[in-house]
Amino acid sequence: MRSPDTIHIDGFGLCPLPITEHDTVQLSHGSGGKMMSRLIQDLFVWAFDNPELKRLDDCATLVMKEGSVSMSTDSFVVDPIFFPGGNIGELAVNGTVNDVAMSGARPLYLSVGMILEEGLPLSDLREIVISMRRAADRAGVTIVTGDTKVVNKGKGDKVFINTTGLGVIEHNFTIGSGCLKSGDVIIVSGSIADHGMAILSKREGLQFETPIASDTAPLNGLVESMLEAGGEAIHALRDPTRGGVAATLNEFAIASEVQIDIREETLPIKPPVSGACEFLGLDPLYVANEGKLIASVSPHAAQDVLAAMNGHEFGRDATIIGSVVDGRAGLVIMQTRIGGWRIVDTLVGEQLPRIC
Amino acid sequence: MRSPDTIHIDGFGLCPLPITEHDTVQLSHGSGGKMMSRLIQDLFVWAFDNPELKRLDDCATLVMKEGSVSMSTDSFVVDPIFFPGGNIGELAVNGTVNDVAMSGARPLYLSVGMILEEGLPLSDLREIVISMRRAADRAGVTIVTGDTKVVNKGKGDKVFINTTGLGVIEHNFTIGSGCLKSGDVIIVSGSIADHGMAILSKREGLQFETPIASDTAPLNGLVESMLEAGGEAIHALRDPTRGGVAATLNEFAIASEVQIDIREETLPIKPPVSGACEFLGLDPLYVANEGKLIASVSPHAAQDVLAAMNGHEFGRDATIIGSVVDGRAGLVIMQTRIGGWRIVDTLVGEQLPRIC
Repeated sequence: MRSPDTIHIDGFGLCPLPITEHDTVQLSHGSGGKMMSRLIQDLFVWAFDNPELKRLDDCATLVMKEGSVSMSTDSFVVDPIFFPGGNIGELAVNGTVNDVAMSGARPLYLSVGMILEEGLPLSDLREIVISMRRAADRAGVTIVTGDTKVVNKGKGDKVFINTTGLGVIEHNFTIGSGCLKSGDVIIVSGSIADHGMAILSKREGLQFETPIASDTAPLNGLVESMLEAGGEAIHALRDPTRGGVAATLNEFAIASEVQIDIREETLPIKPPVSGACEFLGLDPLYVANEGKLIASVSPHAAQDVLAAMNGHEFGRDATIIGSVVDGRAGLVIMQTRIGGWRIVDTLVGEQLPRIC
Repeated sequence: MRSPDTIHIDGFGLCPLPITEHDTVQLSHGSGGKMMSRLIQDLFVWAFDNPELKRLDDCATLVMKEGSVSMSTDSFVVDPIFFPGGNIGELAVNGTVNDVAMSGARPLYLSVGMILEEGLPLSDLREIVISMRRAADRAGVTIVTGDTKVVNKGKGDKVFINTTGLGVIEHNFTIGSGCLKSGDVIIVSGSIADHGMAILSKREGLQFETPIASDTAPLNGLVESMLEAGGEAIHALRDPTRGGVAATLNEFAIASEVQIDIREETLPIKPPVSGACEFLGLDPLYVANEGKLIASVSPHAAQDVLAAMNGHEFGRDATIIGSVVDGRAGLVIMQTRIGGWRIVDTLVGEQLPRIC
């Protein structure tokens, strides 16, 4: 018997579940007995610590004000589970916080559903769970209810995490992919393709001079600043995850029956990401982001919204990349660096599976 | 090329996604491109059909009245995915409907997160999705938002489904596992151990004279009838899934710091289930149920609540199995058929993995 790992985790104190470096998830951790109770009590409830979770009922009771509630769900199956700039737990919190925020809602509550593969080191699970708590704190949301399942070795892949988020909509106009108007300005909140290239470089063991890190971040604070500055001049918000900027712009153009024109030279791309994309033959427009948003904003408010974004830590490099025009409904075109125009279509599949 | 399956599914008409018997889920179905859009539009939106989903934004906007909202999440990894009495889709809807209902809330909305394994026959997925819609209709809930991920063959197991549910609490008292009172009557809504034994017999290829079917069912209607009859005399409700009746009673006894006494001869068990348990050496108290609830009810209202349950299709065989007594906090004991008493503890692990 090795002695359990008793290292204090900064800010979290001692985990009541003793974990040695050889302890792993077992089928009985998901089977409704004492081992499951202990995992939930001594790891999840310890890390997520809040009164709603402590009741250990199968559901959380939340007091909501009258009004519109935004609900979003996402399952995370990213491979590898630890990557430069984050891990699957942080990604699962930020991803759903962002989906809720893109309706202009203020995210408040998250549920967490874990599907663990037998054999996952418990120390990895602990690290993921602590990251989730830190990410939740950073985004100002509470993890109020959860569920844990364990599947046999070889029937899952380490850990899959579903998060479902609830937020409140505190304004009385609609923000949505179907609300773009001709004349709108298209803004991206920062450099594109960071997350996808970080995952890919880790997965393929590629080394670049400047390491590429995921941009995973909660965008609800940025959205709040934008709403304060622009209000109902903000017509649509979306985080360009799977399928990248291209997929989001196409969704916008199709849902709103408008044409979107963008200019290649305005797209913010970090040099190492651009280099890696070129090296691997990938188009950064199609590579996933996890801490960026695209906004369609009425032209009269665009400069105010942009200034508000530039004043926020996650919008410092926000920039205008194009505009909504009368033209062919559903079309996205890009003026290339050399001045020609190309159609920015969505791909049939995608370049990179299991990116989030 | 085989021609796609053009069979009309009763009540659903023709699925716009043409599916031949050899079509399977591919990685590109989860990658944010056209194949994913088509799967979502032509299968999920077709089957779940509602205006909120049709907007295809990453989140649903729900109008809620002021008050308490109940939120619950559950991931389903049951193996096999099709079993006597149901399939993983129906189970995923009923399971979360039930968790929400156990707080006394009226379930209204569900999110669905699918993790599909590459190679899953699309016809199986269609059958599961249609079952989910039927189960949602039966329970009176709407599937308002969703997410689809695909993992490589061998990194998942056909399909895992997370459902997260929202309901409204329309009464002003608390129902919870910590609310049992000495003197309460313990009621079970019907025969126990059906679901677990149905899964096990299918998984192990066991054949019994009378086939054993899962009891998967939505219990929100039953809970409504009980609340009408008993109101705040209903102290606790729980569906005894993983860990069975034993786990639920132990959770009650621990959370409320009471002792619970039950009588073996009052436990409703169908003869084939009882026979199968005996044959396999399993104790039905520990076997999962998916369409049953256990209630702790004040004695003055117990007969009224029981009568209301017996008048409901999912409570016809409801019966009193025990009572809450002063005694040792956290203890559950059972008077056996021969008159002795035994402690009903929770197991360390459980008898059956991947039961739900």
